[in-house]
Amino acid sequence: MTTNVSAYAAPAANAPLERTTVPRRPVGEHDVLIEIKYAGICHSDIHQARDGWGEGIFPMVPGHEIAGIVTEVGPGVTRHKAGDRVGVGCFVDSCRECEYCQQGLEQYCVKGGTGTYNALDKNGEPTYGGYSTHVVVDENYTLRIPDGLSLDEAAPLLCAGITLYSPLAHWNAGPGKKVAIVGLGGLGHMGVKIAHALGAEVTVLSQSLKKREDGLKLGADHYYATSDPETFTALAGSFDLIVSTVSAPIDFGAYLSLLKTDGALVNVGAPEEPIALNLFSLIGGRKTLAGSMIGGIAETQEMLDFCAAHGLGAEIEVIRADQINEAYERVLASDVRYRFVIDTSTI
Amino acid sequence: MTTNVSAYAAPAANAPLERTTVPRRPVGEHDVLIEIKYAGICHSDIHQARDGWGEGIFPMVPGHEIAGIVTEVGPGVTRHKAGDRVGVGCFVDSCRECEYCQQGLEQYCVKGGTGTYNALDKNGEPTYGGYSTHVVVDENYTLRIPDGLSLDEAAPLLCAGITLYSPLAHWNAGPGKKVAIVGLGGLGHMGVKIAHALGAEVTVLSQSLKKREDGLKLGADHYYATSDPETFTALAGSFDLIVSTVSAPIDFGAYLSLLKTDGALVNVGAPEEPIALNLFSLIGGRKTLAGSMIGGIAETQEMLDFCAAHGLGAEIEVIRADQINEAYERVLASDVRYRFVIDTSTI
Repeated sequence: MTTNVSAYAAPAANAPLERTTVPRRPVGEHDVLIEIKYAGICHSDIHQARDGWGEGIFPMVPGHEIAGIVTEVGPGVTRHKAGDRVGVGCFVDSCRECEYCQQGLEQYCVKGGTGTYNALDKNGEPTYGGYSTHVVVDENYTLRIPDGLSLDEAAPLLCAGITLYSPLAHWNAGPGKKVAIVGLGGLGHMGVKIAHALGAEVTVLSQSLKKREDGLKLGADHYYATSDPETFTALAGSFDLIVSTVSAPIDFGAYLSLLKTDGALVNVGAPEEPIALNLFSLIGGRKTLAGSMIGGIAETQEMLDFCAAHGLGAEIEVIRADQINEAYERVLASDVRYRFVIDTSTI
Repeated sequence: MTTNVSAYAAPAANAPLERTTVPRRPVGEHDVLIEIKYAGICHSDIHQARDGWGEGIFPMVPGHEIAGIVTEVGPGVTRHKAGDRVGVGCFVDSCRECEYCQQGLEQYCVKGGTGTYNALDKNGEPTYGGYSTHVVVDENYTLRIPDGLSLDEAAPLLCAGITLYSPLAHWNAGPGKKVAIVGLGGLGHMGVKIAHALGAEVTVLSQSLKKREDGLKLGADHYYATSDPETFTALAGSFDLIVSTVSAPIDFGAYLSLLKTDGALVNVGAPEEPIALNLFSLIGGRKTLAGSMIGGIAETQEMLDFCAAHGLGAEIEVIRADQINEAYERVLASDVRYRFVIDTSTI
């Protein structure tokens, strides 16, 4: 039986979010019912709630950084049980048949997975995200949150954490490797923590030195301001891997010049407009410009286990639901260190 | 003692090449004197002779696809002896000390290697290339040409061959992999031969179907015209690796859409002007845009041995030295199948 649950939703594009109720499907054979405890606010929530990417489905309940407790499971569920601490990330289903789903790369599902919100599920019903008290999710798209992580600090790992962990792991950040993280925001601060825990020598490349002290505390070995041209001279040819989290247009040729031969500049944030790139900045040094998008289910679990083992939660500011609209403004003004997390008991 | 030898040189930027003499250094401790038999004409010879890259050193003797016979060796030479069939590629020296030289990646030497022509050697003397009867080269930058390869068909391997072999090997072209070669010219035709011999399923992406019959004979399994928009629909998401040999500006987003998840588009040719690129075409599918430049000495030897084992010479048209200027015009008009090679006995 469909149940209406409390949520915060944008009733229409660009309208402030407000309290409402949304339907959750009955708990099916392989579903778990989750009582949501915390939901992180991702920059992309704001994009979508304000319809920055077009074609938004309204009312929209954002939120794909979900942490909570299982309260009920379907009869066929084997992976979770009532009382389990669980998380849900950016997608809640995928085709399960294509070569990428078969390889655990569900984020690249050829049919496109089902987004946690602002999407239609396989029955054509809209999905609603984590700014809510409850959600029903297939057990195969539900993650375990290890005991070592508090639920509030774990929530942002489901998007920000995996978005950085996946490229750092894929491009072999680790001992002996020099890794730079561009931008110290919600994504970047998790990049610093994870790269450091993986054993890499970590440099933050930030517009200014304002957050330098934070960066070093988070695990960075070095911190440079990209507004200082000297930075690009001092660091020329020095990184194995650069992960850029920024969506502002940057001078990609300048950042590529900071890579060693065979180095990679991987973008997890990106400007919406095309960038200008001289390909000779790739040819001289066999360099890679790449992109990466969140991570698959198995890798997300691996990331949560890794973060628990290393004590890596997100740096958060917990807010009430009635502060969401104000928090959106603060995210847009880069006024958050480093992730807002909604206490969903206030919804 | 410096010896003057016959050569064809551009006396100044944009001037036609003409017969002249240039000095060759005495055969030093570790040098070999090579009687050049054949020299290939690379597109970049034309660029440089016409000063397309600026700062040309004139008179300029182009030619970095050199095949010949050793006629004299210095007292310390151990790798070659008189009578050996040898080749020289794009560089004749490098710093030998940096991390890349130490790894056999001399083409990415941090100090910049010494080009075979249009460069200054460690003594500040200009280097002169292969459009000449003789050249003196350090034994460590001189390759063995195996008996299975004729010298005329081997000459273009020293640039065109290694330029394609290196990325194909580095990005694991082989059995079970779908590889596309963009452009069927001097570089591309070697790409087709080598990728096929490596065991990959090979597709040529050419502007038109004009050279289709040639492409299939060279080893391609499929041949598509990129002027037909249907090509991009039919081949969407199908390649593990695309190697682009073209310097014309192409629609990189469209080519990236032909890659599978984790696929790579590697450029060995490139437009001189910056390209426009939407980074989301990399993010959705963890794709790589990369570049690659010739190859190191050890890999060039590996390529020559591989080509000999598989009977892969270049497709050539042998010309006399007095046809060089005309050949340049034909290269610019794409009127060559697939490489001009100068018979240096006509110099």
